[in-house]
Amino acid sequence: MVNTDNARHSEKMAKKKAARDKILATKTEEKGLLIVHTGKGKGKSTAAWGMAMRMIGHGKKVGIVQFVKGAWETGERDVFERFPDQVTIKAMGEGFTWETQDRERDVAAAAAAWAAAKDMIADESYSMVILDEINIALRYEYLDIADVIEGLGERPPMLHVIATGRNAHDDLIEVADLVTDMTLVKHPFRSGIKAQQGVEF
Amino acid sequence: MVNTDNARHSEKMAKKKAARDKILATKTEEKGLLIVHTGKGKGKSTAAWGMAMRMIGHGKKVGIVQFVKGAWETGERDVFERFPDQVTIKAMGEGFTWETQDRERDVAAAAAAWAAAKDMIADESYSMVILDEINIALRYEYLDIADVIEGLGERPPMLHVIATGRNAHDDLIEVADLVTDMTLVKHPFRSGIKAQQGVEF
Repeated sequence: MVNTDNARHSEKMAKKKAARDKILATKTEEKGLLIVHTGKGKGKSTAAWGMAMRMIGHGKKVGIVQFVKGAWETGERDVFERFPDQVTIKAMGEGFTWETQDRERDVAAAAAAWAAAKDMIADESYSMVILDEINIALRYEYLDIADVIEGLGERPPMLHVIATGRNAHDDLIEVADLVTDMTLVKHPFRSGIKAQQGVEF
Repeated sequence: MVNTDNARHSEKMAKKKAARDKILATKTEEKGLLIVHTGKGKGKSTAAWGMAMRMIGHGKKVGIVQFVKGAWETGERDVFERFPDQVTIKAMGEGFTWETQDRERDVAAAAAAWAAAKDMIADESYSMVILDEINIALRYEYLDIADVIEGLGERPPMLHVIATGRNAHDDLIEVADLVTDMTLVKHPFRSGIKAQQGVEF
């Protein structure tokens, strides 16, 4: 903080800005993105809720399909429910959960969730569709990856789709536009701290 | 999907559930967490907005200090402003921006932002305080890391603090409870697609 060489700093920042502006100028295409949030760290679904919130702020409509029951709780749902004209949430029956030990029921729930997702994707009134924890359903082969990729390929050109969950399928990553791996660096579970309101749910 | 060995699946899932329940039972401590979202990928701030939304849903108060001007835009702000009793946003004057090439002004803006953050942290009515892009201010040494760590150490025991931004300082990671590195796997900028409403802003 003491070493304030303001002129050098100014020059360095001007160069950074010029480089950044140059890159931005080459970016001209607008299209709906296929976004994947994966990895073992926190923030895969939460970042999707943050993006949904932005869309709501822009006056747009967001659809959410929940592939895993209990993956998210009352906090975000309560807020989304204050925007009934802009947010539609489909929680698919029991969905898949660790509590279930019945593969056939899980497969049926995943198929129902995917059918609901396809309806939302085809409905041009949505600007964003979030397929929450679909990666889990793909991982356990409750859904067929080829079917899902085909369905996503048929989305309206300006629709953004976000697929969340650990262990994203390589084929999904291959066709995605924007992929972020939330990497676990440090987790409080390791030091005996329990899940807490606002952080975990 | 054809190979449905339901009994084996059931046994496998029961084992997973038992292991998970056993781990959860050891987690008994509740405390305010120091959370860091860093990395080159997307979702550092966005996941923080998602967590803020959860807190809002739970009826709690959230404070946000914006250390970098222009780091976030109208979408999320419009939604937060619908909860004026629960969300306080402090955008610190010009703050730091790539547009600025004046180190002294940036240092002063960062100091003002940190002073506002300390006031929020000391105010026990907040359940969560988000220090958005503070990692940038620390990276450029606009703020002193020791001062920041000392201030964070004095937070009320149940307050969650989230520090976002690339290049989180090692000392901050050391004292944090939960650290996630948002790792860039694939970015649409690489294929000539420009920043878009709801995704980038």
